Amino acid sequence: MKKISILGSTGSIGTQTLDVAAMHPDSFEIDGLAAGSNTALLLEQVRRFRPRRVSVASKELADDIRPQLPAGVELFSGDEGLVQIAAGGDADYVVTAVMGSVGLRSTLAAIEAGRDIGLANKETLVTAGHLVTELARCKGVNLLPIDSEHSAIFQCLNGERAQDIASITLTASGGSFRDLTREQLRNVTVEDALRHPNWAMGAKITIDSATMVNKGLEVIEAHWLFGLPYEQIGVVLHPESIIHSFVEFRDSSIIAQLGNPDMRVPIQYALTYPQRWHSPAQRLSLAQAGQLTFREMDFARYPALRLAIECGKIGGTATTAFNAANEVAVARFLRRDIPFVRIEEILEEVLERHTAESHPSLEQIEDCDRAARTLAHSL
Amino acid sequence: MKKISILGSTGSIGTQTLDVAAMHPDSFEIDGLAAGSNTALLLEQVRRFRPRRVSVASKELADDIRPQLPAGVELFSGDEGLVQIAAGGDADYVVTAVMGSVGLRSTLAAIEAGRDIGLANKETLVTAGHLVTELARCKGVNLLPIDSEHSAIFQCLNGERAQDIASITLTASGGSFRDLTREQLRNVTVEDALRHPNWAMGAKITIDSATMVNKGLEVIEAHWLFGLPYEQIGVVLHPESIIHSFVEFRDSSIIAQLGNPDMRVPIQYALTYPQRWHSPAQRLSLAQAGQLTFREMDFARYPALRLAIECGKIGGTATTAFNAANEVAVARFLRRDIPFVRIEEILEEVLERHTAESHPSLEQIEDCDRAARTLAHSL
Repeated sequence: MKKISILGSTGSIGTQTLDVAAMHPDSFEIDGLAAGSNTALLLEQVRRFRPRRVSVASKELADDIRPQLPAGVELFSGDEGLVQIAAGGDADYVVTAVMGSVGLRSTLAAIEAGRDIGLANKETLVTAGHLVTELARCKGVNLLPIDSEHSAIFQCLNGERAQDIASITLTASGGSFRDLTREQLRNVTVEDALRHPNWAMGAKITIDSATMVNKGLEVIEAHWLFGLPYEQIGVVLHPESIIHSFVEFRDSSIIAQLGNPDMRVPIQYALTYPQRWHSPAQRLSLAQAGQLTFREMDFARYPALRLAIECGKIGGTATTAFNAANEVAVARFLRRDIPFVRIEEILEEVLERHTAESHPSLEQIEDCDRAARTLAHSL
Repeated sequence: MKKISILGSTGSIGTQTLDVAAMHPDSFEIDGLAAGSNTALLLEQVRRFRPRRVSVASKELADDIRPQLPAGVELFSGDEGLVQIAAGGDADYVVTAVMGSVGLRSTLAAIEAGRDIGLANKETLVTAGHLVTELARCKGVNLLPIDSEHSAIFQCLNGERAQDIASITLTASGGSFRDLTREQLRNVTVEDALRHPNWAMGAKITIDSATMVNKGLEVIEAHWLFGLPYEQIGVVLHPESIIHSFVEFRDSSIIAQLGNPDMRVPIQYALTYPQRWHSPAQRLSLAQAGQLTFREMDFARYPALRLAIECGKIGGTATTAFNAANEVAVARFLRRDIPFVRIEEILEEVLERHTAESHPSLEQIEDCDRAARTLAHSL
């Protein structure tokens, strides 16, 4: 019986993690759930999965739901509550599925507590990859990727030696606007942007797909997860999102992982690795799919991807500034404060004014994060 | 230093095995070479790779080349010579790349001698899979597939558990006549048939690709190599031959092996497994390939594939009869004795008259092989 806590239980990854847990009730037990403000869904999850500890975004929300919690359930709130779910209780596995950089401290707390991590919060590695991977190594904790691309790479590396890797390549669907020119991007709306061709995901990540920032963050994450230099990490456009990513070895052999888009598969793999269990995910028929297509990544069309990789190569706080500026810019676009293409311009402008600190401490990262946010708000 | 003997050193797989050995001269030493009648090439190989033992198809050929062999090289001939190269000398690894059912006794002898096998002779498993896999198990010998499809499956299974496999699927290019209807097949020539779209291979296997007999033999071979029932082995048409084969696991995840068509890659993998070494094989760029296409296998278009799988399910000597009849029918087509479509008819007719013996001994297999050949000659 694996005891799981979920940070971000009411989001897309959180609910699907609970779906997976529900499919294997004899193998998984839910120890803690941390949600944001969707208390109605959290209460439903509490009734169904009977966690012993829950947390919500604020003290006010906690006060709201307290009367409706079953007796004996411990209640926490805020960033401290997130850390309580991550590192307190009896969990031996923590799924970190909160969005944005708030996931960092709680992920570090979970690793410090010696818990294996199902990593769905990509900002954790983007902003503090050196701290997170170093601590995981010290504590003997496994970082198991949940993102479909990183899960694919992780699966392709099964049984292989690190020194035999020639390169890894992340596939990119191209996002909602993949058929538009840069000129056409000037007039797109929030509604257009939220229509992702292949995956149903949260708003932030759907916008990040359209700007290709998402793939940039994934490249940085892959650098830390798999310990590879940026020169060995590629991106290829693959509109069908059937090949989730692949590894080329030095003998010229390529191993790829494929499937229909269904996050329950990488989530379950992160929970059952190195085993594979039955999944109700729809089987992929390549004959039915008919064709898979591929195009070179166009860095002129997707300048934010080029910028993300540049930040990755600079290292230190550059990736923190990139990520923080992007969170603010995307939020501004979603509330119709700026047009779509302004997201990329804000990223460029914030990074132009940023001086990267190398090997930053957690405090330096948080300072940099705040400064970049303030700047991105003001531009 | 791995000591290798090669059965069939002057054929397509044999010469490419020597190419691979030449790329890693500090790791591989050639102990024995068995050729057929291409003595000029064999003598060239002897000068270059300095084996200590060689064999040719007949005593006459042996007498021809004896004066040209360096001092100290032992010379053998005929089927007994093949067994001498397989099981005598100091090799710890034997590549079985002779074509047809003559490879069986020598492969069994090599396994009996405790040598790991790089298996490129598919008839070995097709005609005596139960004897070969059982003996390999007893002797603790590894059977490493060299065929690109089986190597792909073998690579995809790296680090995975047998019980997690849902199915394996072999890809098929469709062969030289994949765009012809059955009606159009009536008038094809030997020259047409030998023009394979993707792979440069020997004549027999190129014809077997066009009839899809090759894929049928591969399905039977996969059954024995991977210990899977026929219900878990599929075939899909994939004209580009880029995905060499793939495995679906019970979590709906698919792992595939891809590459440009270059037999040196699976040959080298069979020699270096579980490591991967550098290879000069051309790297695959999916963006340059542009697209991969897939179609359901059409068993009405390729009746010999359906028949091969039926024989596999019947088991016993049925696959021996199928393989023997096919060798004769292909030889008859290549010497323009029968039209192309007659190959399939001969297979049907031989199998109609065949009564399968289950769990046949080596003698029963050889009797069946002879009887099926005689019949296929006479039809």
